[in-house]
Amino acid sequence: MTLIPPPPGLNGPVVQKRGALRNALGRRSFLQLSAGLAGGVALPATSVRAETAASPPADAPWSQSIGAGVTDRPYGRPAEFEADVIRRNVPWLTAGTESSVNFSPLQNLQGIITPNGLFFERHHAGRPDIDPQQHRLMIHGMVERPLILTMNDIMRLPSVSRIHFIECPANGGMDWRAAQLNSLQFTHGMIGCAEWTGVRLATLLDEVGLRKEARWALVEGADGAHMTRSLPLDKCLDDCLLVYGQNGEALRPEQGYPLRLVVPGWEGNVNIKWLRRIKIGDKPWFTREETSKYTDLMPDGTSRGFTWLIDAKSVITFPCPEKPLDRPGFYEIRGLAWSGSGKVKRVDVSIDGGINWQTAKLQEPVLSKALTKFTLPWHWDGRPALLESRVIDETGYVQPTITELRKSRGSNSVYHNNAIQTWQIKPDGSVFDVQLA
Amino acid sequence: MTLIPPPPGLNGPVVQKRGALRNALGRRSFLQLSAGLAGGVALPATSVRAETAASPPADAPWSQSIGAGVTDRPYGRPAEFEADVIRRNVPWLTAGTESSVNFSPLQNLQGIITPNGLFFERHHAGRPDIDPQQHRLMIHGMVERPLILTMNDIMRLPSVSRIHFIECPANGGMDWRAAQLNSLQFTHGMIGCAEWTGVRLATLLDEVGLRKEARWALVEGADGAHMTRSLPLDKCLDDCLLVYGQNGEALRPEQGYPLRLVVPGWEGNVNIKWLRRIKIGDKPWFTREETSKYTDLMPDGTSRGFTWLIDAKSVITFPCPEKPLDRPGFYEIRGLAWSGSGKVKRVDVSIDGGINWQTAKLQEPVLSKALTKFTLPWHWDGRPALLESRVIDETGYVQPTITELRKSRGSNSVYHNNAIQTWQIKPDGSVFDVQLA
Repeated sequence: MTLIPPPPGLNGPVVQKRGALRNALGRRSFLQLSAGLAGGVALPATSVRAETAASPPADAPWSQSIGAGVTDRPYGRPAEFEADVIRRNVPWLTAGTESSVNFSPLQNLQGIITPNGLFFERHHAGRPDIDPQQHRLMIHGMVERPLILTMNDIMRLPSVSRIHFIECPANGGMDWRAAQLNSLQFTHGMIGCAEWTGVRLATLLDEVGLRKEARWALVEGADGAHMTRSLPLDKCLDDCLLVYGQNGEALRPEQGYPLRLVVPGWEGNVNIKWLRRIKIGDKPWFTREETSKYTDLMPDGTSRGFTWLIDAKSVITFPCPEKPLDRPGFYEIRGLAWSGSGKVKRVDVSIDGGINWQTAKLQEPVLSKALTKFTLPWHWDGRPALLESRVIDETGYVQPTITELRKSRGSNSVYHNNAIQTWQIKPDGSVFDVQLA
Repeated sequence: MTLIPPPPGLNGPVVQKRGALRNALGRRSFLQLSAGLAGGVALPATSVRAETAASPPADAPWSQSIGAGVTDRPYGRPAEFEADVIRRNVPWLTAGTESSVNFSPLQNLQGIITPNGLFFERHHAGRPDIDPQQHRLMIHGMVERPLILTMNDIMRLPSVSRIHFIECPANGGMDWRAAQLNSLQFTHGMIGCAEWTGVRLATLLDEVGLRKEARWALVEGADGAHMTRSLPLDKCLDDCLLVYGQNGEALRPEQGYPLRLVVPGWEGNVNIKWLRRIKIGDKPWFTREETSKYTDLMPDGTSRGFTWLIDAKSVITFPCPEKPLDRPGFYEIRGLAWSGSGKVKRVDVSIDGGINWQTAKLQEPVLSKALTKFTLPWHWDGRPALLESRVIDETGYVQPTITELRKSRGSNSVYHNNAIQTWQIKPDGSVFDVQLA
């Protein structure tokens, strides 16, 4: 997307000297901070000894009455008490709401599955309302047997279900120059992970027969933007999916209903939604979305194109600006890690801004090109801290700092900011998005 | 649940002689029926050669207009075209809608994750509406340090996320005597599988300290039914979870919001929803729900109790009564398998009522006590067929036929019918729930 600067005074850049913040942390040994769990977790300070209460506890109103029946919600919905767990947009970020983005509330999410109602959405011309009976997929160009398929045709082909993340490469784009928004939802909320069900693109390409000179595929959406990208055939034949199902049910409209492409591990915009056409050719098409957009402006003024891969990235989701610490004591640091190159191998966590690192526990299953949950027990003593996570994927790639990224890429980029995120913990438990220079 | 017989004439029992149906299939070699895929999948008969259409295809209305923005659905919902993909109840099955069940539409679902809006629901006194700020969990009895915890207390403890199925033991209960309803949704729809996030019960039990004589836990719900069961401590310490999250977001109200127990691989009713109390003792309590209900009446008039384990089970979800075949040609037989004892090891599929078996492909990841998706390519020649699936789990347990089950258990049971399901395919492609005697 195009980044429009925030209105003056709304959000000042937050850049702090790594040394200055670290000095404020004092001379403690950070390696010992999380040692408190060895003898069991600390008793929550607010929990009550049961001897002081009636036994069994007094009945609440909902324990003394009959609740709702099974007929009022044939399709369920969240509890009313969870009404603030919603996707949110940043009004000043885009010119309108149709070509915009709705960020996922990572601060409220758990595990590796993103529920469909909270999966981030990015449209280039709004969310179309497509009749699946009328929708067609055309596949033509350098093929032996061009075809137009109905959704029924596609759904009877051999199916696969796979759990993969999709991330917009602009995720974190607002933080390239400086930390702009004090929010996990807005710095990292353009990612989600789901179980996708569909047909291997290789199955369909085998069916239509690729000509000898075929090397590239043009994939086009049926939305008003006709969102279109070029993809190398090697990737198409490797693990791309024509997807009609997400987390067990039909794709949601904002996710491409009735048909989308899933390109595992590659930037979100090539995972074409509302997919209507695949054209096979011998070279890329250099569409608008791979020339004027989705390129990376380098320090020397040139642009990198076709930077599809999502490099390894991680973020601590608790604590975070939206979920501060309420008092000193035991906490579990929780986060997510992912890599477009395969599986997460290890996640390190620092509480002193990257001086000392401890290895976090990875939650099973660790799947290729999927979110991986990590945790680390931590006893917070109430003093300032600088929380960071750093992922290493199965190729050995190590997540960089923002300083390392800027050294090679400058500060003109919008896309592919996979830098280590630093959360500053203040003595009152509040959490701030900072960048250590 | 209590099974009330269907009204006269609504659904006649369907029991057919295994030999008679099999004879109708003729002398074909069933092993060759699915050999058609070796040279690639068959071209769908309704697909159109692209040369006959404009290239690129003509724009639909949704390709010529701007769609909806990102602000109108902060929490998303399915496409309007999917309005018939809903949970359904059987009005005559229970006396009212509050103590009833809402079946999941397995015929529409894909993969191993059940979306939260379609996860089956079973209430004993309706769905309560619980304020999480007021909810408490009490743990007392034979413990050193009894406690009353808030939801905040629980959510700061070390967390785990795990993908597990939950099945009501009455799933398939209507088919004990004979096939009653011609429906996948109603014969198998009391199962779902989700990524559950919460705290290991062992963590909390370690925190309160078990006394030497402790052997059992009483777990109690905060709903109007005060649903209460006894659980052996070995299971509690092994893999039980205090769960607050389902598929990434907070539990839905009908799934126990804000807190439920998940007892992996054990019958649904012990996975106590709206959990408010855990009492530790030295023997089971023999509550109403483990004496008058949730026992199995045996042929000799005695009742089996505490039959918690969900034995290995599988079902073909496509084709099924709700999703018939529309014409001869290539199909993919799809289904789900699961076992309360661990991982699915193998699934066999028969198209001739259990005479010949072929090994289906299992979809990765195959997780312990989780749904596993299986597939088998099949070329249907338009003649009658009898489709069955049979799972073998990692303990070597083989899913039984209904005849084998009745031999040991009689026909008076309601619960734990894990028999092989037979779908009869008629020449017009329609699919019927039959039992081979």
